[in-house]
Amino acid sequence: MNIKFFNLLIALFLFIGSTFAQKQPKYIFFMIGDGMGLNQVQAAEIYKASLDNKNTVYPTVFSQFPYATFATSHSQSHGVTDSGAGGTALAVGYKTKNGVIAMDSAGVKAYKSIAYLAKEKGMKVGITTSVSIDHATPASFYANQPDRDMYYEIGLDIIKSNFDFFAGSGFLKPTTNAKKEEVASIFPQLEKAGYKLLYGLDDYKKANKSDKLILMNNKGTNPVSLKFAIDQKPGDLNLSEITSAAIESLSQGDQGFFLMVEGGKIDWACHSNDGAAAIHEVLDFNNAVQKAYEFYQKHPEETLIIVTADHETGGMGVGNGSSTLKIKNLENQKISQEALSLLVNDFRTKNPNASWEQLKEFLGENLGLWKNIKVSEDFNEDLQEAYEKSFVEHKNETSKSLYATSDKIADLAIKALNKASSVSWASGSHSAAYIPVYAIGVGSEEFHKKMDNVDIPRTVSKVAGWSHP
Amino acid sequence: MNIKFFNLLIALFLFIGSTFAQKQPKYIFFMIGDGMGLNQVQAAEIYKASLDNKNTVYPTVFSQFPYATFATSHSQSHGVTDSGAGGTALAVGYKTKNGVIAMDSAGVKAYKSIAYLAKEKGMKVGITTSVSIDHATPASFYANQPDRDMYYEIGLDIIKSNFDFFAGSGFLKPTTNAKKEEVASIFPQLEKAGYKLLYGLDDYKKANKSDKLILMNNKGTNPVSLKFAIDQKPGDLNLSEITSAAIESLSQGDQGFFLMVEGGKIDWACHSNDGAAAIHEVLDFNNAVQKAYEFYQKHPEETLIIVTADHETGGMGVGNGSSTLKIKNLENQKISQEALSLLVNDFRTKNPNASWEQLKEFLGENLGLWKNIKVSEDFNEDLQEAYEKSFVEHKNETSKSLYATSDKIADLAIKALNKASSVSWASGSHSAAYIPVYAIGVGSEEFHKKMDNVDIPRTVSKVAGWSHP
Repeated sequence: MNIKFFNLLIALFLFIGSTFAQKQPKYIFFMIGDGMGLNQVQAAEIYKASLDNKNTVYPTVFSQFPYATFATSHSQSHGVTDSGAGGTALAVGYKTKNGVIAMDSAGVKAYKSIAYLAKEKGMKVGITTSVSIDHATPASFYANQPDRDMYYEIGLDIIKSNFDFFAGSGFLKPTTNAKKEEVASIFPQLEKAGYKLLYGLDDYKKANKSDKLILMNNKGTNPVSLKFAIDQKPGDLNLSEITSAAIESLSQGDQGFFLMVEGGKIDWACHSNDGAAAIHEVLDFNNAVQKAYEFYQKHPEETLIIVTADHETGGMGVGNGSSTLKIKNLENQKISQEALSLLVNDFRTKNPNASWEQLKEFLGENLGLWKNIKVSEDFNEDLQEAYEKSFVEHKNETSKSLYATSDKIADLAIKALNKASSVSWASGSHSAAYIPVYAIGVGSEEFHKKMDNVDIPRTVSKVAGWSHP
Repeated sequence: MNIKFFNLLIALFLFIGSTFAQKQPKYIFFMIGDGMGLNQVQAAEIYKASLDNKNTVYPTVFSQFPYATFATSHSQSHGVTDSGAGGTALAVGYKTKNGVIAMDSAGVKAYKSIAYLAKEKGMKVGITTSVSIDHATPASFYANQPDRDMYYEIGLDIIKSNFDFFAGSGFLKPTTNAKKEEVASIFPQLEKAGYKLLYGLDDYKKANKSDKLILMNNKGTNPVSLKFAIDQKPGDLNLSEITSAAIESLSQGDQGFFLMVEGGKIDWACHSNDGAAAIHEVLDFNNAVQKAYEFYQKHPEETLIIVTADHETGGMGVGNGSSTLKIKNLENQKISQEALSLLVNDFRTKNPNASWEQLKEFLGENLGLWKNIKVSEDFNEDLQEAYEKSFVEHKNETSKSLYATSDKIADLAIKALNKASSVSWASGSHSAAYIPVYAIGVGSEEFHKKMDNVDIPRTVSKVAGWSHP
């Protein structure tokens, strides 16, 4: 082979190589399990297999993605991030102070999220979650506010975003600003900006899918969040339905899209150290990923799916002493700790002088304790003590986690069940454990080494061909 | 461009592609942090940065490798593996029952490890560890025995392996067989099989590096394991020195080599829930990886380094409530819990009626408690109670972990320090948390997705071009 021909080959080789390298995704899914550390995923996959009495894992869709790695998540201010700084890092590629939404630590300079970069390139943008639309994680993608608690101001930032699709349970403070003043509701302002407000899937079905849409939960439901997956009944709005609606709506026209989907209540369940609820949230989030994956299967050459988390919550551990895992015990839990708390209150109202045996029967029905699961001596004592206080002395106690105030008896009973199910918890707060990162599709091969959280959106920008600000 | 030329191009393209794909490593490092879960690495990297008061991580060598992912580690019999089944999975690519070394669950069929595959291909083989050479993890690479406790029989399997280099602290049962009978020492048998027995680095330096060598710790030292890194003094044999010696010895001739290096005492420190000792073990293991990395830098086109773990130990968590991490507090700990236990005994012998203040002073010197670190009320109470029992009532209590029996006061004091240092523990046993997998060099690009532990040696076989049995 002569030199000229060889050089031509090399040139062609490089050209072909660079053409492949320049292939950019037209559809980007950025999916965040809030509080979903590696052990949360592992627990969910072990749980699924355990239901068939198998000593293995039944993998989620995303843990089978061709690229899987992990990332650090510390914020600029703290070793352990909150969802504000965590969401910000994932959305804009910069670290900030805990509590800040897509701004610098001083709350002065606004950062542009990758959702804005997508919008600038002409893509449609969707921001969806299983909690409120103004919550820290979704907010980081469309809002810029110095404090995650400025829900009203965050909600109004939807207008400046001009993004195409929003969905979640609703809004936390639609009429109360950061100064705690009652002010003009955000809803007419959103409508004036061209958004159609939809309450529930029926509203969505009737809507013009090409309109700018804000899909919230059915009227009369709690705007704070969707129900925990473990508590959902047929007809309750869920994250998969939201994801499907988002995909359908953003597919109108042919501009491509960027869709952020947050499984927001993995975090909430973990704040309550409620292993069963956390596992069901991971599986629910996985159902939403499944919708994205089905879209990917139709457009494998044009789609990128990233699945990650903002931080780990609870310092969850899988295994707490024995080599035999008893995660299967969690199938006895029928409702979340939150729902159980209400049920304990209800039970107490109906049976103010219930016997210890009656309470045990009640907890057995809802959690399997005593009935199917041995309760350790310590927890037996603690529960009996709580029973005495509540049903004999009639002093009710509560314990508080970030998103829930729970009845002492419900709290202890869930702790006892987790202990008996090989699940451990370090605290009711976030931890500094790595966050998982999974990727499939165009550009996914860039996600192959340990990262920092800010590298995740930066790598998305890179493979999408955007110049990251 | 005409079709013929295009076809030629494609053919060339495929040929060049397949040539690249067929490139096989001549030097393989298989490095195992026993008990090194993801949080153990994260804690070590945060600790390093904290010493400079930096709210970030100072990465280990291996966590900067171009490929990093994670793997499940359940054994055939249990959700949580032991080091026998865990080592077996990594060595032979098959799951087995907890406690078994490189055989099937029934202890009947022997499995061939990747070290044997390397040997068959003419490569030199080295098996090294910071614990005893007959311990479960190293054993899985050269021995086949139905029970990890058959130390004598495991040691003798060195002879059938005919591997080139072994190193570790020594042998646990060189003269006692599985039936607890006193039998012929393994040492003359090893010598008869052509092995030179070396005690300490000085012996090694004088040895013919082309001989088959077994490097143990200096005569008179504990054959059970090298000292904990946190307890080591200059002159104590350490894992980096062993790694360097192995590299030098296996580089004699030019056959290439397979070298297994185990950081065996990360696990031991975690069994004792001793965060500082665990972090120092990870950093010590990292020093050994550094030696492999330096070799890689000299032979980047011929070397593959895998760094992984057999399982996680302790359910270690980083962060236990506050967003501010206090891992830096661990720098106050001067010695391992094991060494502290001996020191407490010593202190008690010298000061049988020491005051509570004297004991506090003693613990302050060794761990910083009270002196530099606030002790929580709970631990203060527990420690004072243990003091009363020990120094007033003169009843000494001990607590037992897998590899250590520790004085109650030392145990509580270490627990108090860990609690004050944002480190949490689920138990004194292994957990089902993912194991990390890091790779660099020839074939490392195969390590990009979530794996099962058995896939790790299988992938090594694949990239090395061995047909896995």
